[in-house]
Amino acid sequence: MSYASQLLDSYPRTFNVDAKVLASAIDALTDCAQACTADADDDLSEPNVAELVKCIRLCLDCADICMTTAGVTSRQTEYDANVTRPLLEACIASCKSCGDECERHAMMHAHCQVCEQACRRCEQACRQLLDAMK
Amino acid sequence: MSYASQLLDSYPRTFNVDAKVLASAIDALTDCAQACTADADDDLSEPNVAELVKCIRLCLDCADICMTTAGVTSRQTEYDANVTRPLLEACIASCKSCGDECERHAMMHAHCQVCEQACRRCEQACRQLLDAMK
Amino acid sequence: MSYASQLLDSYPRTFNVDAKVLASAIDALTDCAQACTADADDDLSEPNVAELVKCIRLCLDCADICMTTAGVTSRQTEYDANVTRPLLEACIASCKSCGDECERHAMMHAHCQVCEQACRRCEQACRQLLDAMK
Amino acid sequence: MSYASQLLDSYPRTFNVDAKVLASAIDALTDCAQACTADADDDLSEPNVAELVKCIRLCLDCADICMTTAGVTSRQTEYDANVTRPLLEACIASCKSCGDECERHAMMHAHCQVCEQACRRCEQACRQLLDAMK
Repeated sequence: MSYASQLLDSYPRTFNVDAKVLASAIDALTDCAQACTADADDDLSEPNVAELVKCIRLCLDCADICMTTAGVTSRQTEYDANVTRPLLEACIASCKSCGDECERHAMMHAHCQVCEQACRRCEQACRQLLDAMK
Repeated sequence: MSYASQLLDSYPRTFNVDAKVLASAIDALTDCAQACTADADDDLSEPNVAELVKCIRLCLDCADICMTTAGVTSRQTEYDANVTRPLLEACIASCKSCGDECERHAMMHAHCQVCEQACRRCEQACRQLLDAMK
Repeated sequence: MSYASQLLDSYPRTFNVDAKVLASAIDALTDCAQACTADADDDLSEPNVAELVKCIRLCLDCADICMTTAGVTSRQTEYDANVTRPLLEACIASCKSCGDECERHAMMHAHCQVCEQACRRCEQACRQLLDAMK
Repeated sequence: MSYASQLLDSYPRTFNVDAKVLASAIDALTDCAQACTADADDDLSEPNVAELVKCIRLCLDCADICMTTAGVTSRQTEYDANVTRPLLEACIASCKSCGDECERHAMMHAHCQVCEQACRRCEQACRQLLDAMK
């Protein structure tokens, strides 16, 4: 059981969203943030780095956005849907853009394939959390 | 002239948004992120910390979101409106929520008054950038 | 296998540290960052929040430091020991301080017990990485 | 007067370091974080991006470390010198490495010259804060 799950279990108040869906999203977000950071770095090491500039840029954005979304969704106290909802929308858009770009390089670079998977899984987990919040 | 302005001036390519509006937004975002971090900490030092829990939580969110938005808007290479636009919407929502909550404590706590100003200015700068992007 | 491991496996160049030790550290760092963020929020929800102010503050620091250390250690390209080494030292110090404070509240609050474990594990993983770098 | 200064002025408790030195460090840290983020992006737009890989990597590290150090030094409540001190050391090392690398490209790229200035100023401000803490 991930720390995210354990900490939701020991949260002192109640919360209005399914804990399993929430924990899955938090885990997918932190995983995706790390994968994007690492993939941007892998791209920098490639001989064809000039062709990977868009991938690097989208990975840097996606890492930042996923990390921030992980923080905001980890906080349950005085939860504010007006903030969480548009942030999840932005995170879904970022995972989509980054995943699509990684896919274009997945045949040539195994690290882009791994990062694409992390982005797709995170996009899906954020969509499920957004649905569960409704 | 802020570093943000100087670095936009020396950007090697052209970009499709007014540099002055962009630089103002970046500066307002980094200012707001710092103000929210400091205000959350100021709240923690108050004898009535239990009444400031909502303010702390929204400040932590707003600090993270503003910092990430500063990063994404600072990146011009392979700019992706599909990511930047919803992120700016999320940031505007966060500055609004945090600014409103800070306003409730502004009479009693000078630090909340300062933070409210930073949030209002940032919200406005993000709206202007969003308009300029259209 | 974590994304961190998979991305180290597909890194295009060679690196001078044991990949298993490095992947364990990266995973422990991202886990600890999330645990500290969540524990600070759990503390904010407790009726005795005023007694948990030190715990909240150290958790916020530890979350930021672990996240940054995860980023820096995830980057292998043009690795700079002059930066990584003191940062790992700072991260070890932060995990130690935060783990010690969480331990003081572990009997009363299960979430502090979980966070203490994350901090202890991360402290150890950072020490092992620092040793492996020598 | 920067928000950092205003928020230190309205801090509800006393703190044991000169407020002016502290505010200067916080402002230099947030400035440097933004400059490094923007310079890494400027580098990505250059035709000779392959020669700027080390600069990009060090800028990404320096941005993360400065941002985290800005957060930790902005927090005064339950201040822990055991954490702040090694973190400032790590930040000084990062600003030094990044500033040195930017200097190598400063003649060719104006954005690296601007970033070098931000790194040098931040390194100095962190040293002054470390001295003031003794």
